[in-house]
Amino acid sequence: MKKEGTNKPKVVIIGGGFGGLEAAKALKDKPVEVTLVDKKNHHTFQPLLYQVATAVLSPGQIASPIRRILRRAPNVEVLLGEVTGFDLDRRTVLLKDDLSIDFDYLIVAAGARHAYFGHDEWENDAPGLKTIEDALEIRRRVLLAFELAERDAMRKGTHEPLNFVVIGGGATGVELAGAIAGIARQALAKDFKAIDTRSAKVMLLEGADRILNSYSEKLSERARKDLEDLGVEVRLNSFVTDIRPGEVKVGDEWIDSSVVVWASGVAASPLGAMLGAETDRAGRVLVDDDLSVKGRPNVFVIGDMARVENEDGSLVPGVAPAAMQMAWSAAKNILGDIRGEARTPFRYKDKGSMATIGRNKAIVEVGRFKMGGFLAWMAWLVLHIVMLIGFRNRLFVLSEWIWAYFTRERTARLITGDAEDLKDALQFITAKPGRAESEKASRSKVA
Amino acid sequence: MKKEGTNKPKVVIIGGGFGGLEAAKALKDKPVEVTLVDKKNHHTFQPLLYQVATAVLSPGQIASPIRRILRRAPNVEVLLGEVTGFDLDRRTVLLKDDLSIDFDYLIVAAGARHAYFGHDEWENDAPGLKTIEDALEIRRRVLLAFELAERDAMRKGTHEPLNFVVIGGGATGVELAGAIAGIARQALAKDFKAIDTRSAKVMLLEGADRILNSYSEKLSERARKDLEDLGVEVRLNSFVTDIRPGEVKVGDEWIDSSVVVWASGVAASPLGAMLGAETDRAGRVLVDDDLSVKGRPNVFVIGDMARVENEDGSLVPGVAPAAMQMAWSAAKNILGDIRGEARTPFRYKDKGSMATIGRNKAIVEVGRFKMGGFLAWMAWLVLHIVMLIGFRNRLFVLSEWIWAYFTRERTARLITGDAEDLKDALQFITAKPGRAESEKASRSKVA
Repeated sequence: MKKEGTNKPKVVIIGGGFGGLEAAKALKDKPVEVTLVDKKNHHTFQPLLYQVATAVLSPGQIASPIRRILRRAPNVEVLLGEVTGFDLDRRTVLLKDDLSIDFDYLIVAAGARHAYFGHDEWENDAPGLKTIEDALEIRRRVLLAFELAERDAMRKGTHEPLNFVVIGGGATGVELAGAIAGIARQALAKDFKAIDTRSAKVMLLEGADRILNSYSEKLSERARKDLEDLGVEVRLNSFVTDIRPGEVKVGDEWIDSSVVVWASGVAASPLGAMLGAETDRAGRVLVDDDLSVKGRPNVFVIGDMARVENEDGSLVPGVAPAAMQMAWSAAKNILGDIRGEARTPFRYKDKGSMATIGRNKAIVEVGRFKMGGFLAWMAWLVLHIVMLIGFRNRLFVLSEWIWAYFTRERTARLITGDAEDLKDALQFITAKPGRAESEKASRSKVA
Repeated sequence: MKKEGTNKPKVVIIGGGFGGLEAAKALKDKPVEVTLVDKKNHHTFQPLLYQVATAVLSPGQIASPIRRILRRAPNVEVLLGEVTGFDLDRRTVLLKDDLSIDFDYLIVAAGARHAYFGHDEWENDAPGLKTIEDALEIRRRVLLAFELAERDAMRKGTHEPLNFVVIGGGATGVELAGAIAGIARQALAKDFKAIDTRSAKVMLLEGADRILNSYSEKLSERARKDLEDLGVEVRLNSFVTDIRPGEVKVGDEWIDSSVVVWASGVAASPLGAMLGAETDRAGRVLVDDDLSVKGRPNVFVIGDMARVENEDGSLVPGVAPAAMQMAWSAAKNILGDIRGEARTPFRYKDKGSMATIGRNKAIVEVGRFKMGGFLAWMAWLVLHIVMLIGFRNRLFVLSEWIWAYFTRERTARLITGDAEDLKDALQFITAKPGRAESEKASRSKVA
């Protein structure tokens, strides 16, 4: 059933994100045998995860099975598995379930997770957004908050204020805050009869003195104004010092919160440390200029896991285009090795960046060119549709967007999970210290 | 925020399935105040659940938020809550979280779950299909089985046979078996490189001497042949006597199984017993001919929870049209009460039934009219598209079906869940007694 082993060099790629997938594509039909390992069976189009978290898109629309994507690459095999360690001297990757896999070349592209700056205990109260599961959990909490407010309003004639707090004013935080405001202001307004969803508050907390600080100051300011037009309260210079159920502490002030989302800071996959390589504080591997690990020319680290400096000393950002460029570079150097050519150093080409803020609003910056508003938003839409993997996903996501634009509805509004889970989720809203007593009040009737 | 209480009679509906939703619609704009309680926020279109379980459709495409559906019914409120009991003398429904709700009329429409005939311990090894969560769990297991076989094939050059066992030859079992065969034969065939997914076996076990035994013998036989054409092995007169991880016992014979799905027998919601009413062995409430509970004329039980006999002594089946007809009857009698009119007894009108078997194959039976094959399949498609709630869902599901028909692909192929869950799921396949030793063999290399 299995093809006989060949003498072609074996390349193992870890991770089916933008970097890993692009490396596999670059090695397609080349004289190597490739195995791509991922602990999920699907590639996730992370730039649109916030739309799953805010009920615009369904998970299946931004995720594709990895082996479907690589179906037509006969020299690439896909393996569902979780890496537990490396034996680089023996050129072996160790996997869960006592599995291992040998390589001649290794490309590690396992990406990053959100990080809590030494406060991992915050994760439960302020989930981040990196996977489909994360997005579904955030969607669940946001939708439940409205359901519970409706229930309170029916029972007591009033309800706790709905406060959504997004921590971190980077692209993800800005997109989430804008989209949550859109849900409250438009999508849900007609569906709730006891509460006015439009009275919900959305707050974006940013530690620095401006949001989106990888952009020019002018665009940052424009984005801030756009967010405020959408009903988001933007608080700058606001460091979060503590988080507990239902409350976020900024400096010395506790802020009531129905749902908190963490969009501040990421850390590279722990696989970087497992390689035994030198890493920076965010867990990124300090790679050589050909993206290989020092002393291990056959081991490459790419994407969000790699710490790469530009010529001006700035860091290559953790974005999809950078991961893809690194993948091309690593694949090229591996194929070059096989032909006996010298290594080529990696050089990042910044193609510009864009962030969407909400309906009709986005910002685009390409070198000195800056743009905001509707045209930037259209550019964002077109680029993301083009970047989506698979003709089918493009077609269906475009249809969903057109639908959502004209109806102003959010259609992927399922709260899934068992009733017991539901009860746990309620605790984020009802278990706030000091609120317990009123909850314990004797059985009160609805209407 | 809450409207002031009125003197209009209060109707509480429990359940947002076909029965409960239809009752709410029938009471829309009538002189009653309605509250619909469900523990989920969404209505699930159960007839298409098997398509979520087999990766054709996404959950959001067959489920709609209940409050969205009832948005334009000003006298209907929707409450997310779980019923824990009743105080019928005080006309109160008790809910979780110390909540309660008063009623003048109560319509209980909480449906049914799959039942294991006193073998609840089988549920973990043979999940049933009644909710979105059930469907995702089955999808996960089916897709994982192929992934793990691929992994085995890469590691050992061979793999355990892929055996999918569906227990129960009713409509759900037939649809699931046909759809799983479709996945193995067509949808996945090109995506796996080490295994031949077409060699997977799908077995349908039925205790009686024919499948779909609510249909005529001729159509049962036709359906059996259709299933066999699709590659399903149909075993009749096959009673399941035991289930354990990786194996199903039929009579005295243990059958190896990668994934087992339970589609045999349902039990009514335990809320029937909580009403203190007389129930049959399947937990259905024995209602009066106006569908009210004996001695409680203001409490109606409808849908799968009600045991209702036709004039010929046969039972009204647990299908959506029956639940909807009961909803209309209960609503009519409540409104009649208010006007001082006498009760009208419920009479079921059988509009016929249909089941789909697979690509181009279905059966339809309306009275003496019987039909199979492509035309029946088209009739099935049209009816289910029309029945789907919401123009948007109709549009998108139709698009998905057209896509799936011409590409022969299954696109909703995500395996979601954490890595630890994954490991648990693996156990269904690898923890089979007697298979453990080969698994414990020393670390073997891939390729």
